[in-house]
Amino acid sequence: MAVNKTPGYKVKKTPRFSNHPEPGYVLGGRIWLEKDGELYIGWGRIILLERIDKFGSIAGAAKSMSLGYRNAWLWVQAMNRLAPSPLVEKATGGVGGGHARLTIEGQKVISEYKEVHAKFIEFLKQEI
Amino acid sequence: MAVNKTPGYKVKKTPRFSNHPEPGYVLGGRIWLEKDGELYIGWGRIILLERIDKFGSIAGAAKSMSLGYRNAWLWVQAMNRLAPSPLVEKATGGVGGGHARLTIEGQKVISEYKEVHAKFIEFLKQEI
Repeated sequence: MAVNKTPGYKVKKTPRFSNHPEPGYVLGGRIWLEKDGELYIGWGRIILLERIDKFGSIAGAAKSMSLGYRNAWLWVQAMNRLAPSPLVEKATGGVGGGHARLTIEGQKVISEYKEVHAKFIEFLKQEI
Repeated sequence: MAVNKTPGYKVKKTPRFSNHPEPGYVLGGRIWLEKDGELYIGWGRIILLERIDKFGSIAGAAKSMSLGYRNAWLWVQAMNRLAPSPLVEKATGGVGGGHARLTIEGQKVISEYKEVHAKFIEFLKQEI
């Protein structure tokens, strides 16, 4: 039996089920990283970090994934607060300003989380 | 770093976080079984099946886990519909009626799900 593909990020009230369900019995799952019981890193936040890296701003990243700017900003604040050192830094100055970029720590978090996520997908595949 | 303990079942709007967060960085997660994109088995449903086995009725099981009877009944209907063969059967007759019991298939689903769940907890522990 097939396993859930890694979903593209989409804002949903109940994030349990994929939009394109596979037929038959499928083992689904989610993982996330907490710090002191608070959400630190989840799939949506990883996508946000990647998009900040790609677009060079929180606003551009948020828009590209249909996430409100305020939410994106709050996620970045939370991640920076919960991380050992900030994941995103504002690049002040420049025309129009508002630019942001990932720190080395931010890059590291993306690659480490994706590694664990890939193992998790393997786990789901094996267990069905 | 510690891993989330298997939570006792409690009805929550957002089932992401434990009520007793552990300090530091913790890898959390949830798994569930879908049939054709619909929730078939999750942690709450496994607890419900176990309680039906213990109390011999859907009403008693629901009450024991602070779950509304209507919800419990709907979960049982869904599980019976999605399973290869029913997990719960109504035992009609007897004083007062309303008794229910697990089928062999129901027992099997509990033990198989718990086995996968235990491996998942191990996975979370290893990956942190």
